[in-house]
Amino acid sequence: MKLATLADGSRDGTLLVVSADGRRQSRAGAIAPTLQAAVDDWATVAPSLRALAARLDAGGGDPLDPASLLAPLPRAWQWLDGSAFTTHGTLMQQAFGHDPIATDRPLMYQGLSHRFLAAQQDVPFPSEADGIDFEGEFGIITDDVPMGCSAADALAHVVLIVLINDWSLRAIAPIEMKTGFGWVQAKPACSMAPFAVTPDGLGDAWRHGRVCLPLRVEVNGSWFGDPDGGAMAVGFHDLIAHAARTRDLPAGTIIGSGTVSNPDYDRVGSTCLSERRVIEMLARGHAQTPFLSFGDRVAMMAGGAATFGRLDQRVVQAAMPGTAAV
Amino acid sequence: MKLATLADGSRDGTLLVVSADGRRQSRAGAIAPTLQAAVDDWATVAPSLRALAARLDAGGGDPLDPASLLAPLPRAWQWLDGSAFTTHGTLMQQAFGHDPIATDRPLMYQGLSHRFLAAQQDVPFPSEADGIDFEGEFGIITDDVPMGCSAADALAHVVLIVLINDWSLRAIAPIEMKTGFGWVQAKPACSMAPFAVTPDGLGDAWRHGRVCLPLRVEVNGSWFGDPDGGAMAVGFHDLIAHAARTRDLPAGTIIGSGTVSNPDYDRVGSTCLSERRVIEMLARGHAQTPFLSFGDRVAMMAGGAATFGRLDQRVVQAAMPGTAAV
Repeated sequence: MKLATLADGSRDGTLLVVSADGRRQSRAGAIAPTLQAAVDDWATVAPSLRALAARLDAGGGDPLDPASLLAPLPRAWQWLDGSAFTTHGTLMQQAFGHDPIATDRPLMYQGLSHRFLAAQQDVPFPSEADGIDFEGEFGIITDDVPMGCSAADALAHVVLIVLINDWSLRAIAPIEMKTGFGWVQAKPACSMAPFAVTPDGLGDAWRHGRVCLPLRVEVNGSWFGDPDGGAMAVGFHDLIAHAARTRDLPAGTIIGSGTVSNPDYDRVGSTCLSERRVIEMLARGHAQTPFLSFGDRVAMMAGGAATFGRLDQRVVQAAMPGTAAV
Repeated sequence: MKLATLADGSRDGTLLVVSADGRRQSRAGAIAPTLQAAVDDWATVAPSLRALAARLDAGGGDPLDPASLLAPLPRAWQWLDGSAFTTHGTLMQQAFGHDPIATDRPLMYQGLSHRFLAAQQDVPFPSEADGIDFEGEFGIITDDVPMGCSAADALAHVVLIVLINDWSLRAIAPIEMKTGFGWVQAKPACSMAPFAVTPDGLGDAWRHGRVCLPLRVEVNGSWFGDPDGGAMAVGFHDLIAHAARTRDLPAGTIIGSGTVSNPDYDRVGSTCLSERRVIEMLARGHAQTPFLSFGDRVAMMAGGAATFGRLDQRVVQAAMPGTAAV
């Protein structure tokens, strides 16, 4: 089953059920007004949403206009982003020039969750000098997870899977990282592809707590990479158990895989500019690929455009207080 | 003006206006159902709330029962915690055994915001072995702050001031800090004193973007410290501008000062155990004061119990899935 959120002028939008082919939709209406309301009461509302999805797949509902959508979860109470791809970690430590991170625990930080940008929405940044970059990753949305939930019990709490672009500012990231406090300025709002998909909606691609699909990135219309999400060193169940060690996770918590990255990057490319830049640096002594400029476009999809829908966004200059937008 | 939130079985509670002496209350009712609703539309609703407060101060309303309250903002879309007290930073780097943090920016991390515990609520932790500690600090609650807001413009966005106990797990904190990703397990839910106070409600104690009041901590009924909040190296306006450099801040964002700490700690004590432990270690070669045990109580207030009300909580063993609570 796929869910989406219709823009209606409110912060949380209106919940839609979407057909498996991504072409038709129907309002969830009285079943649940918003995606947050649905995950707050998932066990009760999911069967009714599934019944609506079955009617859509039989030809019911109305045509879907992707431009009318918000992010499936336009804001969340908690966004915890992991870093579960070993290749990404190894390349980034070379990019940032720091020592290998010595830890036997999953890596995770808490990020901005009060806004997830819509799949076709312009992405505003204050300055190109901050090193504007993207990160392609998968995320899961949980129902209520109690403190102390084990990895063995955690997969049952995964109710939806999403595709995320975790926008990152590379001129700031290593400075903040060196404080030990994690990232604030270096991690502005993320974007989310149009459809949130139930685990069974991914079929065999959801296995071992991993999304085993290539995540395809295009920059200004050209292929940039399509590494596979199955290469996580730890699965989402491990990330959930890590997050829940000393806190409960409220329904609607989003947990990210970290940037999808594979060891054979020479063949499959990357899902962020920083990785490609450090690969170039290692091979040729200097990075050739620049960070993004205002006007550049970044697109992402995974498993075909019907699965999560397509992220396709333009990077723009933010309108700053007291200044006119460029 | 003071605001509080009545427990009513919902996650966000019912907004109350409280008299200046903290003894009487009246429901905000149709003015704003919750504190989040009030800050979402602060310019419009504040005058009506103030009119209600004036009637309370003239003897209207009903008696206030502190045990009936939630945290004034029981959950928030964003909690960004600074570390603005130089003495705290210096002592903690000695406690954690790391190098001084070399940065010319304010220190800040994003923390758990989906729950702030009530002032008299038991505080559950999974294990005493995690090094259970408290941190006394002040926080401000903003209205909507645009990306790029300057420090000069930032103070106008401070609508309320709160007193926070930022519970911390010291056996985990340095491990997470060394990853550079900030804290997840080491920073469970914070607690908040009963009353959120407008800046004018603090009179002269709110100046230079700082809460110039001693923050008094008691552990198991004994004085532990009362350093002054005015010693922040940077003010809340600087913290807001730092946070808003690459993101907007939604109404209801809470920004923390970090642990209140003064250079004359021999006289004024501390607001966290870790500081006292490292002071003991420096003076005598070993820490004498233990971290907290289940059953221990921590109380905090600032500027007298009427100002923010009194935090007074007991540390308890969390009920874990599949186990009986101790």
